[in-house]
Amino acid sequence: MSVTFPKGFQAAGVDTGISAADKPDVALVVNQGPQFAAAGVFTTNRFCAAPVQWSRKAVADGDIHAVILNSGGANACTGEEGYAQSERTADFVASLLKVAPDQVAVCSTGLIGELLPLDKVLDGAREAYGRLADSAEAGADAAHAIMTTDTKPKVATRLGSNGFRVGAMVKGSGMIAPQLATMLCVITTDAVVSPGQLQAALGAAADTSFNRIDVDGCMSTNDTVLLLASGASGLEPDPDEFNALIADICADLAGQIIGDGEGMSHTIAITVKGATSEDAALACGRAVAASNLLKCAISGNDPNWGRIVSSLGTVPEDVAPYDPDRVCVDVNGVRICDGGKPGRDRSEVDMTPVDIHIDIDLNAGDREATVWTDDLTHEYVHINADYES
Amino acid sequence: MSVTFPKGFQAAGVDTGISAADKPDVALVVNQGPQFAAAGVFTTNRFCAAPVQWSRKAVADGDIHAVILNSGGANACTGEEGYAQSERTADFVASLLKVAPDQVAVCSTGLIGELLPLDKVLDGAREAYGRLADSAEAGADAAHAIMTTDTKPKVATRLGSNGFRVGAMVKGSGMIAPQLATMLCVITTDAVVSPGQLQAALGAAADTSFNRIDVDGCMSTNDTVLLLASGASGLEPDPDEFNALIADICADLAGQIIGDGEGMSHTIAITVKGATSEDAALACGRAVAASNLLKCAISGNDPNWGRIVSSLGTVPEDVAPYDPDRVCVDVNGVRICDGGKPGRDRSEVDMTPVDIHIDIDLNAGDREATVWTDDLTHEYVHINADYES
Repeated sequence: MSVTFPKGFQAAGVDTGISAADKPDVALVVNQGPQFAAAGVFTTNRFCAAPVQWSRKAVADGDIHAVILNSGGANACTGEEGYAQSERTADFVASLLKVAPDQVAVCSTGLIGELLPLDKVLDGAREAYGRLADSAEAGADAAHAIMTTDTKPKVATRLGSNGFRVGAMVKGSGMIAPQLATMLCVITTDAVVSPGQLQAALGAAADTSFNRIDVDGCMSTNDTVLLLASGASGLEPDPDEFNALIADICADLAGQIIGDGEGMSHTIAITVKGATSEDAALACGRAVAASNLLKCAISGNDPNWGRIVSSLGTVPEDVAPYDPDRVCVDVNGVRICDGGKPGRDRSEVDMTPVDIHIDIDLNAGDREATVWTDDLTHEYVHINADYES
Repeated sequence: MSVTFPKGFQAAGVDTGISAADKPDVALVVNQGPQFAAAGVFTTNRFCAAPVQWSRKAVADGDIHAVILNSGGANACTGEEGYAQSERTADFVASLLKVAPDQVAVCSTGLIGELLPLDKVLDGAREAYGRLADSAEAGADAAHAIMTTDTKPKVATRLGSNGFRVGAMVKGSGMIAPQLATMLCVITTDAVVSPGQLQAALGAAADTSFNRIDVDGCMSTNDTVLLLASGASGLEPDPDEFNALIADICADLAGQIIGDGEGMSHTIAITVKGATSEDAALACGRAVAASNLLKCAISGNDPNWGRIVSSLGTVPEDVAPYDPDRVCVDVNGVRICDGGKPGRDRSEVDMTPVDIHIDIDLNAGDREATVWTDDLTHEYVHINADYES
């Protein structure tokens, strides 16, 4: 169903040949109102792409009518000419929809450092405009169009208690690191909500979802998450329920990204508890999630806790106070490190499940946090040594 | 020649079966004086191993007569029992040499989280003591004994202008990150120098060598670099020359580690110039060196500059002020990113050399720094998914 699940949204996905893959590569999502509230979160990368520069400005006033997205090229590090391409794309879509250019957000994903074939993007936009529909199929086409190394489209839907709807699509598989958002994500709702409400809900949701996943420690230049509200249901949600629903759908999408991380054979959920603060727990979890050695060990079905604690030991004491001699580590429920020393034998850990759970108890406080990552496999190297050379 | 090149040093390496590999696994290096000056730098990992805890205390007074080293087990995260093992090992070697236990440093490398087979370590120490010699062969045996995933022993020698000598051995291939030192390194000299001079020379040398290499971003629990001076040449070096020689031999050894990084097919030297400070240049270089995506691209012979600048863009502006639109990137001498935009075509870059040079000009100042790393290959994953499970 994707982004067309809520009332008031149409979408399309078309194949223009921008991407070498034989699949749709341009998506259009249009909010038909009656409201056009919008919020966004973006990469903090200083080399942020032209479409990010454009969209960040466009969404600032909380008013977006459409999002045009392409795979097959990131339009990042392309200078003024690249920015002009994003602007031209927004202008063109705006003219089709008879709205202002700054009511159109632009998203791109693919190789960094090359201009887009603009003619194909504009042709794609025109074709997508002609195919706009509120059907499940149209939503699915759009979700396919934004995929790059993703092996499957990623969508989610939620239903509010009084009947309002939320739908979403996301793409992301590599160059995923926990510094705001993921690659490209569009979330739609037909609830009646203000831009301020949307921004608050999205910011909080991203912080506990997209900001806590790490496929490869690499921050993208193009990360964009947009949340659009049409108000077409006429239903005003309970604010707490709305925030919780947005957080829930973002967590679902973040989990789908980790579940489809480049080359992954295991997902790894790292929960750090017993910390003095949530930030301390997060810093510890992120240090462990960033360990190539651990990620390789997990791909070899080895619950190598030495690689867990050696990563934990890189977190400065002022960031996360704890006593190394009190730290315990469970892998899939087996306590293999007990008070900084060997616990039960590693051979007792069942490593056959795809989803691996690493539970770290710092025994220093009562706060906790979870981060998610993938193992590091031959396939990851293959994808990234050979991708789009 | 290794550590036996300077006068006043004997060494040995013996095979005790601690390590599963069919090679020496216990090394002994003995300073026969007349002076016993020593300095050390150690890992900053909070889960530092028992031998690190022992040796840091032992070297604090600048007086060390011998170093006993083993591969096949790190004796890290082994609690009080592990610490007692390091202490017993030092005691035993001290009794053989008729010195005090705290005049013996202990180094271990191998799997984290398991106690050592102490009997084998002590048998090895006794056997090594019986075989001590100042020959080139004895130095080579010791250098072999500390290898783990290293594919070759790593040694270096230098001759001072007035005839004093410096010799060194190092091991290190994986779990190499730039936060003090490397795995295990012993440097010897027959110059007449004080412990204070040694510590100053070693600290400065480590900072521009072992602290600037990064195989996999993972900090070890066991990193130890020891510098021992026998004074046996009777020669007092010029202080500046001595410092420069120690820096030079450390840079040589660090280069050998990168040249033998786990699974490497390319070394990567990342020089960041045009920075506002050396720290800014270092922060940028380290961010680039940590990119799995870039390291995979290099292993696929793809000079993917998008992955260089996207890593550069993660360095906060207050750490490294620069304007993304003024950044230039050369790979092997070809300017493929010019002012934040595409420069010459990537296909012009010759990627056949083993050693790849990435030169980044921030165009923001006149300071620079270089860091060294390796590419990320299938072989790295193989080694670390299958190593000692």
